[in-house]
Amino acid sequence: MRIEKVKGTRDLLPEEMAKRRWVFERIRGVFERYNFHEILTPTFEYTALFQLRSGEEVVEQLYAFEDKGGRNLSLRPDMTSSVARLFVNQFQNAPKPVKWYYIANMFRYEEPQSGRYREFWQAGVELIGSDKVEADAEVIALLVESYLATGLREFTVNIGDRILLDEFAKMLGVSDDVGLMRLIDKKDKRSREDFIGSLGEFGLSDEGIEKVLALIEIKGKPDEVLPNAEELFTSDKAGKEIKRLYELVELLKAYGVYDFILIDIGIARGFDYYTSVVFEAIAPNDLGIGSIGGGGRYDNLIEVFGGKPTPATGFAIGIERLIPILESKGLIPEPKLRPDVYVIPIGKELELRAKAIEITQSLRKKGITADYDLMGRKLKKALDYAGRLDVPIVVLVGKKDLAEGRVTVRDMVTGEQIAVKIERVPEELSRLLRR
Amino acid sequence: MRIEKVKGTRDLLPEEMAKRRWVFERIRGVFERYNFHEILTPTFEYTALFQLRSGEEVVEQLYAFEDKGGRNLSLRPDMTSSVARLFVNQFQNAPKPVKWYYIANMFRYEEPQSGRYREFWQAGVELIGSDKVEADAEVIALLVESYLATGLREFTVNIGDRILLDEFAKMLGVSDDVGLMRLIDKKDKRSREDFIGSLGEFGLSDEGIEKVLALIEIKGKPDEVLPNAEELFTSDKAGKEIKRLYELVELLKAYGVYDFILIDIGIARGFDYYTSVVFEAIAPNDLGIGSIGGGGRYDNLIEVFGGKPTPATGFAIGIERLIPILESKGLIPEPKLRPDVYVIPIGKELELRAKAIEITQSLRKKGITADYDLMGRKLKKALDYAGRLDVPIVVLVGKKDLAEGRVTVRDMVTGEQIAVKIERVPEELSRLLRR
Repeated sequence: MRIEKVKGTRDLLPEEMAKRRWVFERIRGVFERYNFHEILTPTFEYTALFQLRSGEEVVEQLYAFEDKGGRNLSLRPDMTSSVARLFVNQFQNAPKPVKWYYIANMFRYEEPQSGRYREFWQAGVELIGSDKVEADAEVIALLVESYLATGLREFTVNIGDRILLDEFAKMLGVSDDVGLMRLIDKKDKRSREDFIGSLGEFGLSDEGIEKVLALIEIKGKPDEVLPNAEELFTSDKAGKEIKRLYELVELLKAYGVYDFILIDIGIARGFDYYTSVVFEAIAPNDLGIGSIGGGGRYDNLIEVFGGKPTPATGFAIGIERLIPILESKGLIPEPKLRPDVYVIPIGKELELRAKAIEITQSLRKKGITADYDLMGRKLKKALDYAGRLDVPIVVLVGKKDLAEGRVTVRDMVTGEQIAVKIERVPEELSRLLRR
Repeated sequence: MRIEKVKGTRDLLPEEMAKRRWVFERIRGVFERYNFHEILTPTFEYTALFQLRSGEEVVEQLYAFEDKGGRNLSLRPDMTSSVARLFVNQFQNAPKPVKWYYIANMFRYEEPQSGRYREFWQAGVELIGSDKVEADAEVIALLVESYLATGLREFTVNIGDRILLDEFAKMLGVSDDVGLMRLIDKKDKRSREDFIGSLGEFGLSDEGIEKVLALIEIKGKPDEVLPNAEELFTSDKAGKEIKRLYELVELLKAYGVYDFILIDIGIARGFDYYTSVVFEAIAPNDLGIGSIGGGGRYDNLIEVFGGKPTPATGFAIGIERLIPILESKGLIPEPKLRPDVYVIPIGKELELRAKAIEITQSLRKKGITADYDLMGRKLKKALDYAGRLDVPIVVLVGKKDLAEGRVTVRDMVTGEQIAVKIERVPEELSRLLRR
C-alpha cells in the first residue's frame, strides 16, 4: 500500500533544507544582534486561545481537533497568540521590554497556491512592553535588515496606520468601518472602476469617494506623502498619530533604512488585533507572490489574554514566500551535498574494509566531510558512484598499498593518482581540498 | 480570560532554546561530517501511514484528527514512517545509500513524566539502501559520536539482535514469541523473582527458564560475551547472525568507538518493525531517565509502504532525555542572554534619541549585540536596567558630549567612564569587549 503526503504539505529535501537553513541563519544573526532571544511554544494550544483574538478568517482555517482527553486543541495558525499567552503566564513582571524571536512552522487550512502551503514557516519577533515609537522603529528596521541579510535589495516595507484608517472611517460616517478598511486594504487587487463601484456600496457621497481616492494616493516616500496626510485628516487624534509617524520616519533614518520605507495609508492588514502602525514588506516578482512579511503594533492583545494592559509590536517573515524570490535572484548559495572525500576498499577482506573506515574516520575528525563505500561495491562501480556524486577526491585502499603503509589518492577532476602514507592522509587531503 | 498551555507541552524559553540549539548544532556537525543530509517531512500525515507499521502502542498514542476536507490525519509520532513514505514516493531510483538526517518534533499522547512530553524533539538519521554490516556500523558509530560531540562521556550503546531473539523463541518452542520478547526487553525494570515468575506464564520448562536466564546474561563487552552467545544458540541462522555481530564489532573498533559498545542480547525495543540489529543508548543518571536514543535495522519497512524491498537502518536521539543529563553534568555552556552594549540617550530630544540609534546600529553592523533604551527611561532607571541585565558596557549619549562629537562609555564592572569620539565607538568598544 502506497501512501502520499497530505495535500498542501511538502517534503523538504536536502537541497531545499540546506538553502532554508542558510536563510534562517542569516535572519537569526540579525535578530540576535538586535538582542532578540529565541523562544518556542507548543505546536498546539487550546482552540479557545486562537478564537480569543484572531481574525475570523484565521479561526475558520484552524486545524482544530479533540485530543484523547477531550480537550479542544488547534495547531497554531501563527505565533502571536501563543507568545501573548506565554507572556501573560510567566513574564508580566519581567524587566521590559521583552524581545523574543521565533523560527517555526504554522498551520492553516486554506487553498494551496503559489507560495502558500497548509504547513508553512515564519521567522518573526515580538517586542512587548514598550509603547514608544522607538519600539516600532526597532522592529521595522529589523525587518528591513533581515531581508538585507539574505542579499535581497529590491523590496520596500510599506507602513500604514490603523488609527488613521479608523479616523478616516469616522470622518466619512461609514457604519461598516471594518468592511471599508478591508476593501481599502485589497485595493491593489482590483481595477479603479471596480474599486469605485464597491465604494458606492458603503453609501458614500461623491465627496466621500473623492476622499477615499485621495487616501489611497497617500502612498510613497514618507517625506513626500506625509504632508498630504496632514491635509486629508482633520481630527486631533489623527493629527497626533501623523506626528508620531513623522517621528517614526526620523528614527528610521537614524537606523539607516529610510531607502526601503514607504508610507501607504491604505494598508490595514488582515488581523483585527492591530492598533496603530501596521506594515508589510513587498518584493516585486513574477511569481505571483504578494507580501513577504509584515506586522504592526497590537497594544490590546495582552489584555484580551487576561494580562495587564501591555503595549506590543512585532512582525513575521513568510519563509515560503521569501525563499522563491531569493532563489529567482540567485541569492542563496548552492549547498554542497556530496562528501569531499570518498574512500573505497579494493577487496572484501575485513582488514581492508576496517582500514577504509579508519581512514574515513581520521578525515571526519579533521572536520572533512568524508564517506566510504557502504554498499560493498566493486572498484569500478564505486568509482562510478563517486563520479556521479562529483566527489573531488577518492582514496583507494588496496592490499599491496597497505602492506607498504600507504593508500592511493585520486584527484577525480584531473584523474591524477598519488601514493600517500596512511598517517599523512588527513593532512595531505586537507591541503588538496584547500586548493 | 487567561488560558494555559496544554498538558504535557512546554514553552521553551530563551535560555532553554539557546542550550537546545547548542546541542542541535553539535549533533548536526557530526551528522554532516558523516555525509548525512537534512530533510523535513510534514508535521501531519494520513493516519493510515502510521497504522501501516508502528507498534500498537504508538497507534494508540496518535494525535489523530479529521481535517476540514474529511481526511484522517495524525501528527507524526516519530520520523521513520514519513521518511519511508518519502523514499518510496521519490527516491527508489536514486543512487544508494540514501543518507538522511532530521531534527524535528514528534507527538504522542502518553502520560507526561520525567523526560517525557506530548510534544518532543528527536535528532535522527536513516540510512537506506544498504544491507551491509558497514551500514549498521556507520549508524552506531555516528550515534556514539553524536553524544561525544555534546561532551558526554559516560554512556554506552547496547546492541541486541532481533534475529537472535526470534531464533531463541523458536528454540524454546514458545508460541507467544512477541510476548516473551517484550518481557525480556523490560527485564531491567523488575526483580529476578518477578521475572522468573512471569517466565512461567509462557509455559517454559525449568530448562527453558535456565536458557532465558543464560540469554539475559549475554550482556557486556562484545569480546567477552559473544562467545557465550555462540554456545547458547544452535541454529544455523543464529550462527550466521552471530558471525555478523562479530564483524560489526570489528568495524566498530575501526571506527574507534569500541569503548562505548556493549552487547545485550535481551534488547528488543518497542517497535515491531526492526529486523536484526537493534541498539539503545544508556547514560547512567539520577533523573529517572532511561534510554537517551536508539535504533536498528528495518529491512522490511520500505516494502510495507509499497516500495521495492530495500534494506535500511537508523536511529533517533531523544532530545528531552539527553538535555537534562547534559545539564546535570554542566556540559552545556551558559548562553549569553544580554546585549554586550546598551546605549542610553540622556534626554527626550529627537536628535539625542536618533543619535543613540545611530550608535547602536554602528555597533550591530560590527557584529556586536547592542541594544538601546526602548522604554524612554530616565538615566538612573536605564542604568539600573542595564545593571540588572549584567550588560558590560553602557554608552551615554548626552547633549554636551554630542556638541563635541563624542559620547561617554561606561565600564559597568569597574564603573570607569571614558569619552570616545562618535566615529571611533565601534572600534573602541570592540577592543573593550575583547578584553
